Amino acid sequence: MNMMKTTCALAIALFVLHSAHAQNKPAGFTGGHAAQQQELEARFDKLLSAEAIGKNIKTLTEKQHYLGIPRDKWVAENILQQFKSYGWDARIETFQVLFPTPKTRILEAVYPDNYKAVLKEPALKEDPTTGQPDELPTYNAWSADGDVTGELVFVNYGLPEDYEYLERLGIDVKGKIVIARYGRSWRGTKPKVAQEHGAIGTIIYSDPEDDGYYQGEVYPQGAYKSEYGVQRGSVLDIVVYPGDPLTPGVGATEKAQRLERSAAPNLLKIPVLPISYHDAAPLLEALGGPVAPESWRGALPFTYHVGPGKTKVHLKLEFDWKIVPAYNVVATLKGSEYPDQWVIRGNHHDAWVYGAADPVSGLAALLEEARAIGDLAKKGYRPKRTLVYTAWDGEEPGLLGSTEWAEEHAAELQQKVVAYINSDGNSRGYLGAGGSHALEPFVAEIAKDISDPQTNISIAERKLASDVAAASNTKAKKDLLNKKDLTLSALGSGSDYSTFLQHLGIPSLNIGFGGEGAGGEYHSIYDTYDNYSRFKDPGFAYGTALAKVGGHAALRLADADLLPFDFRSLYKTVNGYTTELVTLADQMRETTLTDNQLINSNVYQVTSDATKPLKAPAPKSEVPYIDFSRLQNALVGLDSVSRRVYDVWNKKQVPAAKLEAFNKALFQAEQQLLSDKGLPNRSWYKHVIYAPGFYTGYGVKTLPGIREAIEQREWKEADEQIGIAAAAINRLTGYLQQALNSL
Amino acid sequence: MNMMKTTCALAIALFVLHSAHAQNKPAGFTGGHAAQQQELEARFDKLLSAEAIGKNIKTLTEKQHYLGIPRDKWVAENILQQFKSYGWDARIETFQVLFPTPKTRILEAVYPDNYKAVLKEPALKEDPTTGQPDELPTYNAWSADGDVTGELVFVNYGLPEDYEYLERLGIDVKGKIVIARYGRSWRGTKPKVAQEHGAIGTIIYSDPEDDGYYQGEVYPQGAYKSEYGVQRGSVLDIVVYPGDPLTPGVGATEKAQRLERSAAPNLLKIPVLPISYHDAAPLLEALGGPVAPESWRGALPFTYHVGPGKTKVHLKLEFDWKIVPAYNVVATLKGSEYPDQWVIRGNHHDAWVYGAADPVSGLAALLEEARAIGDLAKKGYRPKRTLVYTAWDGEEPGLLGSTEWAEEHAAELQQKVVAYINSDGNSRGYLGAGGSHALEPFVAEIAKDISDPQTNISIAERKLASDVAAASNTKAKKDLLNKKDLTLSALGSGSDYSTFLQHLGIPSLNIGFGGEGAGGEYHSIYDTYDNYSRFKDPGFAYGTALAKVGGHAALRLADADLLPFDFRSLYKTVNGYTTELVTLADQMRETTLTDNQLINSNVYQVTSDATKPLKAPAPKSEVPYIDFSRLQNALVGLDSVSRRVYDVWNKKQVPAAKLEAFNKALFQAEQQLLSDKGLPNRSWYKHVIYAPGFYTGYGVKTLPGIREAIEQREWKEADEQIGIAAAAINRLTGYLQQALNSL
Repeated sequence: MNMMKTTCALAIALFVLHSAHAQNKPAGFTGGHAAQQQELEARFDKLLSAEAIGKNIKTLTEKQHYLGIPRDKWVAENILQQFKSYGWDARIETFQVLFPTPKTRILEAVYPDNYKAVLKEPALKEDPTTGQPDELPTYNAWSADGDVTGELVFVNYGLPEDYEYLERLGIDVKGKIVIARYGRSWRGTKPKVAQEHGAIGTIIYSDPEDDGYYQGEVYPQGAYKSEYGVQRGSVLDIVVYPGDPLTPGVGATEKAQRLERSAAPNLLKIPVLPISYHDAAPLLEALGGPVAPESWRGALPFTYHVGPGKTKVHLKLEFDWKIVPAYNVVATLKGSEYPDQWVIRGNHHDAWVYGAADPVSGLAALLEEARAIGDLAKKGYRPKRTLVYTAWDGEEPGLLGSTEWAEEHAAELQQKVVAYINSDGNSRGYLGAGGSHALEPFVAEIAKDISDPQTNISIAERKLASDVAAASNTKAKKDLLNKKDLTLSALGSGSDYSTFLQHLGIPSLNIGFGGEGAGGEYHSIYDTYDNYSRFKDPGFAYGTALAKVGGHAALRLADADLLPFDFRSLYKTVNGYTTELVTLADQMRETTLTDNQLINSNVYQVTSDATKPLKAPAPKSEVPYIDFSRLQNALVGLDSVSRRVYDVWNKKQVPAAKLEAFNKALFQAEQQLLSDKGLPNRSWYKHVIYAPGFYTGYGVKTLPGIREAIEQREWKEADEQIGIAAAAINRLTGYLQQALNSL
Repeated sequence: MNMMKTTCALAIALFVLHSAHAQNKPAGFTGGHAAQQQELEARFDKLLSAEAIGKNIKTLTEKQHYLGIPRDKWVAENILQQFKSYGWDARIETFQVLFPTPKTRILEAVYPDNYKAVLKEPALKEDPTTGQPDELPTYNAWSADGDVTGELVFVNYGLPEDYEYLERLGIDVKGKIVIARYGRSWRGTKPKVAQEHGAIGTIIYSDPEDDGYYQGEVYPQGAYKSEYGVQRGSVLDIVVYPGDPLTPGVGATEKAQRLERSAAPNLLKIPVLPISYHDAAPLLEALGGPVAPESWRGALPFTYHVGPGKTKVHLKLEFDWKIVPAYNVVATLKGSEYPDQWVIRGNHHDAWVYGAADPVSGLAALLEEARAIGDLAKKGYRPKRTLVYTAWDGEEPGLLGSTEWAEEHAAELQQKVVAYINSDGNSRGYLGAGGSHALEPFVAEIAKDISDPQTNISIAERKLASDVAAASNTKAKKDLLNKKDLTLSALGSGSDYSTFLQHLGIPSLNIGFGGEGAGGEYHSIYDTYDNYSRFKDPGFAYGTALAKVGGHAALRLADADLLPFDFRSLYKTVNGYTTELVTLADQMRETTLTDNQLINSNVYQVTSDATKPLKAPAPKSEVPYIDFSRLQNALVGLDSVSRRVYDVWNKKQVPAAKLEAFNKALFQAEQQLLSDKGLPNRSWYKHVIYAPGFYTGYGVKTLPGIREAIEQREWKEADEQIGIAAAAINRLTGYLQQALNSL
């Protein structure tokens, strides 16, 4: 009976959409709807103005606007007014978050020569924005207060393997101050690893090899970092959790329960300060100890030594630990058919100083999207689903605004959000797109339709070409030449998608252009309109391109008849990660065997130069054979169900009455990939596929529970995490099967 | 009848030696002779004095002693007297060779700022040897005279691929002066390639990244090159032919027919000058044009540009082109049984300035061998074969002394010489040994018997350990860990073995220690006794070690009952080279296909940053399938015959009456590998297995005719050269078969 009823319903009311096979027809739309959507997007594109984007960048970056100062509020209100003027329903939602700013900053060499660090970026007559009163001093937010004096040790990039090498040199950083260079790892990892090794303070400097004259002409002649330039930035241990450190997991509303600051597990215990290469040079040049190994040496004109010895430094830092308001701007355009299905688009508005590239270049594109959509709405357009355009505050100190908002509204967001589309900085170059892999074909499709401003080929083609050009060997180039579709990268952290994706399991994307706008302005006072418009995106053509990508994505998700989720891509990607891990374990097994054989033979001893002794590394635990079969079998299930879901989706065999529920099932599916327990030692992170690495910070670790267990040689934990990931995949498979069954 | 007679002869008079299976018994000796030889070597070792080696280094480097000045003759006569005092029959054999020294050296920037290059290495109060009157100015011997002014272009290391990159940047060096950094290729290749591309002058400088503070403390605090240090050196195109450029192929005796200087094909047409990084910095810093690609940038503290533009330089060089006497010292100790079988040992005695490391550290070890052997002789020892110890003059300008001597005595040497054993500089570290691969097991055997002065394991074990440590990946490390025997490297050029090996087909070895004595003194005034004894080989322990290697090799070759040639090693090695070439062609084929596909697609155009345009490379001719079968089949024959020869040799089944002839057959066998025609465009080089590379200079190319034809994409020539190499291998096979048949 039941079955017959279903069959009848199918026969009569089947929502049969013609497959949109014509090239560039957006998938998930009926033939007629597809053409309508294309027409809408064409109108949208015509409304975009590069000039308006440039003007917005100029206005919003005239003065510094970091979290907690009046200009931060001014910017939020300016954005609010813009949304309102575009016809959106907009408001500011405020949270109360901890945010330290510096009171005392002293760094001096006390031996062998006195040197007092300048710690100040000079104003440039060539750039009138720079040099305004009370510019935010150069510092790392969330450094501990501290007053320490000690011998200095140079730790290269401050990675765990750098400390392994120090051990081979017989150098211990316990009780010492370390100096690390920016690069290779996220800045917050450097003091964290230093602290783990017993250091009492950390200095981070920009070496001209990584960020300075070695790369090209320095600002203002060129775009690269000049000798006094300093990269500010957060060292909050966001890989434990982002957001206000006092309110993990809940919104930092006025009334929220707060931890004591000393109890926040993601705050450092040691002081840390970023400095310029001008300030680093005298400290490094005077260092004694062994000559630094070749891969540690930078581009300063002297012999790099590791220390300790000769250089002794005094570092004193005090901060004003205040609770400040974070102003999130939230604008909505209510959906006509599915008001409770939300497409969220976001970019932060706070900056370390002026922030033309970071974040206003992305924000201005987002505002331009909102303006154009507002114009369309004024002419009668209504999205089927609700569009939510946001501008977050307090991203720079640790994704504060977006995290508190998402935590506060977690349950509602998990119910309603179709996808979160993030951007941050933007510049000339290639489309960078990362995120939830079920959205991979969707993003590839969008990218095929948008022209690159410089070459007139599509941004997808140009991105693929750049991948080919960047490939390191012939085999890789050959493989990439045969690739037709864009792939999404996996997301780690460092921008506002993190909480949506990794804490809540909301399908997320991060988009932006880059690769031809390299420079050294990042988080310095030189990230200005002048700098941006000279070196990053002259004419703001890539601002328009970003608005097209963001706008098309938002509009298609808002209007699609069937939401463009394709779990075959998720399957393919996770299957690839699994293969990577199998290979990783095999390679580690072989490498460990050989390395231990080298250690146990006398190779290290007899090849250690007596004038520069180097101990053998410590032997490592052997790598057992690991049982990946649960995960592999789970993936077989996902492979199969994802094909069946695609088939239904592609043939559009969804009864009209079940469309809303089926779409909801599609966008909520990713939540099945969350694990209750979260990742080991950082339970805030729930997603079993994507997380920032515990020792990479912004850098992603895919299948993080398993991968990090293997990397850290926690074999038992690797086994457990395989079980957890397999269970999540199986949950997703069952969930998708359920969705099919319900049709 | 005949066969029966042979059998009887074998039964009666067979020279049956007991196989010397006891470990470390030298191969090629009867049991009794083996023990005698070991005892002899033990006595030899005891006679060696590190102190004497140090004293000799000090005496011979007190003053500069380059070719053509009185002190050069003084050194030759000092060595002559030493040999005589050790009981050797010694004499000086003089040739008359062309040798230019500088009269005028001007380098100045004429735009944008005037800068007159210092071109002078300052005296150091910490090193009393330096700063003597009339030190040889810094220059490249065999630069053309010239007076040129032009825009400057930075060409990185000046390799052919650097010019390919310049072409992509749209930069032509025609009519311009190029500045190249030392390193990656032999110095003479740099002006040669520049000249091929139309440059009118070449400047070569030492970048501190390759040779200066980037590597470590500079002299006199450390061993590395200070800002004013300059590497002198020859730019004679020795890959065409070495020796006096006016007398190719014949000895430069007084009466020899000489070419006009303008007709010598291995002389440059453009001026070239080496400079310090002090002098290079202002020229490079002022350069305009594109920012240099990352792999081109050195360690000077500014942005490297390629030019042209901004920097314009004036280079004026004039030389005194004189015919000067080259004094070769030749000492003999006549063989008791086979006086017409010669074992030659050699090291040059001329230096660019003081030359403590290069060449006197090697020379002093050689003289110590001669002293010890002389002592043994005084106590009754007589080698079976004649020992010839030599000290060559004029090596630095282009292997002049050794080449003229070897060319003059070519026929006699090809008749008589068992092997030529060369050394040059020496320092602390690992045994480096290269040469004729039939001698590989012989060298490995010697190296097993000699202790490393620092670790007390054998120099063979330590060398193998260093190979493991230096291997770039786990697979290579693992393979090397299983390796038990030393391998010989193949010889290119850059020292006095070249003519013996590559022109005459005389089995040759080149030996020396190194790897822990890195520094920047090479060819500068800072290559002094003080520098050497502080940084290269304090205590001269490695001088003694080199004397052991050289002495044992000479004595074993002089005394062996059956000469230790093993053609299985030659087979194995050449077979390996053949496999390399097959792989090279396959890889080039695949790479070319992909590269051309990239070029023909729009990848290069669409990924060229408009602010730094970079053209696509020119498409390359496709790589055909190449017929290696002739060579491969020839190697099958060599494999077989070399096993049979080894079998006879190992079982010592050589009738006493045929020993002399059989030994002669063994040491003359390598001459079968010479081709009459020589290599394409450089017929002086006759050896089909080993040659310096046409574009690498000192660096070896194995199976050079074939390899360079493939690299240069001369497919017809590759085919011809395969035929030539196959014929040579077949000749050797037939020759060895003949030697077996004659037993």
